[in-house]
Amino acid sequence: MIPNPRIESLVGIGSKWLEATGPFSEIVLSSRVRLARNLSNFPFVHRARVKDLKEIITRCKSAAEATSHLEGGFYIDVKRLLPVDLQFLVERHLISLEMAGDGKSRGLIVGQGEVLSLMINEEDHIRLQAFASGLQLERAYELASDLDDALESRLEYAFSEKWGFLTACPTNTGTGLRGSVLIHLPGLVLTKDIDKVLRGVTQVGLAVRGFYGEGSEVEGNFFQVSNQTTLGKSEEDIISGLNKVAKQIIEYERNAREMLVASARLEVEDKIWRAFGILTNARTLTSDEIINLCSAVRLGVGLGVMRSISTKDLNELLVLTQPAHLQKVYDAEMEPQERDVKRAEYVRNKLS
Amino acid sequence: MIPNPRIESLVGIGSKWLEATGPFSEIVLSSRVRLARNLSNFPFVHRARVKDLKEIITRCKSAAEATSHLEGGFYIDVKRLLPVDLQFLVERHLISLEMAGDGKSRGLIVGQGEVLSLMINEEDHIRLQAFASGLQLERAYELASDLDDALESRLEYAFSEKWGFLTACPTNTGTGLRGSVLIHLPGLVLTKDIDKVLRGVTQVGLAVRGFYGEGSEVEGNFFQVSNQTTLGKSEEDIISGLNKVAKQIIEYERNAREMLVASARLEVEDKIWRAFGILTNARTLTSDEIINLCSAVRLGVGLGVMRSISTKDLNELLVLTQPAHLQKVYDAEMEPQERDVKRAEYVRNKLS
Repeated sequence: MIPNPRIESLVGIGSKWLEATGPFSEIVLSSRVRLARNLSNFPFVHRARVKDLKEIITRCKSAAEATSHLEGGFYIDVKRLLPVDLQFLVERHLISLEMAGDGKSRGLIVGQGEVLSLMINEEDHIRLQAFASGLQLERAYELASDLDDALESRLEYAFSEKWGFLTACPTNTGTGLRGSVLIHLPGLVLTKDIDKVLRGVTQVGLAVRGFYGEGSEVEGNFFQVSNQTTLGKSEEDIISGLNKVAKQIIEYERNAREMLVASARLEVEDKIWRAFGILTNARTLTSDEIINLCSAVRLGVGLGVMRSISTKDLNELLVLTQPAHLQKVYDAEMEPQERDVKRAEYVRNKLS
Repeated sequence: MIPNPRIESLVGIGSKWLEATGPFSEIVLSSRVRLARNLSNFPFVHRARVKDLKEIITRCKSAAEATSHLEGGFYIDVKRLLPVDLQFLVERHLISLEMAGDGKSRGLIVGQGEVLSLMINEEDHIRLQAFASGLQLERAYELASDLDDALESRLEYAFSEKWGFLTACPTNTGTGLRGSVLIHLPGLVLTKDIDKVLRGVTQVGLAVRGFYGEGSEVEGNFFQVSNQTTLGKSEEDIISGLNKVAKQIIEYERNAREMLVASARLEVEDKIWRAFGILTNARTLTSDEIINLCSAVRLGVGLGVMRSISTKDLNELLVLTQPAHLQKVYDAEMEPQERDVKRAEYVRNKLS
């Protein structure tokens, strides 16, 4: 296996949706909408035979290539990727951990700027993803829905009038839609109101996860809020419900930040600047540590305390300093300790 | 009481002996020799009456003014000092904590660059002090001894053929000499050999104390090593004995540093740079913290890891960021929390 040139083209570059150009970017990193779809007359992925999987890829790929939505993008044969490239795609949120695991026939189509992407033969035949910067769930849904319509005109989806879109796991049946918002809540963590707020979020039927989705730990005050329910509601209702809650959380976070500035400005600024001092001077940094330090500095940028650095830089650092990204940038297989050294070097170069 | 103009002339300036120009300056901050002397026919200070104390000051002052050694210096009436100025002089090692405490008639003569100074009516009638940069005990002794000779030709010292110089406390009787070396041993602390080395030091009859002498805590890996015995040995033997031990400690410290560089270069460099990052970015810094951070950065300068900063700067920071110094520099009475903020500001200005 040789390095995939398509993947090489992403190395060292941040995804477009991390650019911090969207609304509420000081608090929301990105909005994502994912649609799960399956082709009728084919078994679900976990029961499909090799021949089926190959045929599904062929059909989905040619349908996707016929649309204008993914123009300028590229196709990747996931089965033929090196482990480091698989991990690289996981770090970029382009494939899921599960998909990286086994050697099944799977495909990935990545659109320009990684705004739109299509996983083929993940849990479902099609997992269509759209990202947008900041809080732009409607925009992400619009992008996803447009591509979905274009594909639907070329593919026969497994769809039931009673249940809606049929999916491999019943938790996705119906709309097959999962909207999620990656949100940075250091203020609520510092004021210790975070548990109360997150309890409220889960009580209205939403899920809270860490930076890397299901099963990932919450780190550095980054939270992923998404809908649990995909059935019995329209897509528009799901999106607007999630959007409403996201706006409430933003409001709480803003209040928490105001309170902190009013009551403990010095301590907060000190914390922010110390994090910046360590980030720009350390000679070795673990993944966990960088997320926590970026979190503090990101708060500093949001509060206007720190002006020499941008939210975009910090968003990108979160992704570009992950293990596989570092190994791709430095073009070397590295032990964790070596990576920590290179990570610190990378951050210093980026921020100085 | 108005601010003493003599003291104002020292504000914001480091003592000459902190300049890091002497031998072994990367490890030894300074060498100090102190001689305790008393006038015959006067009671010791703790039993002297006001009239006696005044007469002692008059005699010592005129004797000192007649010598060339203290030319360009100045006299301070300690009793008439503001508390902040007393503390300022303690921080500069020019008077002792005890001397600052009560309202007795006491005087202080400070020579140029604070290399030589004379406390009058401290525990003894005369406490003569000489400082030198780095490990220069002989030089400090020579300076002290020359001034002592000049004073002795004009004053009648309390001296016994059998016991030597008589002093208020018998632990100083004989030579009245206390030599001390302020030494920075981060290497031995990191290799955990420090206790063994310090045990060896005390076993040969020397004392180990913190940065501010007797009763002060050891902080930031700075240790003060001094002779305990003043009786039954010649001045030269005391000085050369202390010098020999100091050189041994330096040797141990150098070995420890070499070992650290060989076995844990990355961890040590990381520690050093993080300390630098915090020192130059924090918005509030306590006294204790600054000593510990300066200690790490000073090691970095000694190891050649850190080149943008000098040992002199760090030596001076240790003194110039003490509470009274800060209040003098910013010309304001400050609560501890305010001082911590100003301290951080002062360090940033100094190091950027």
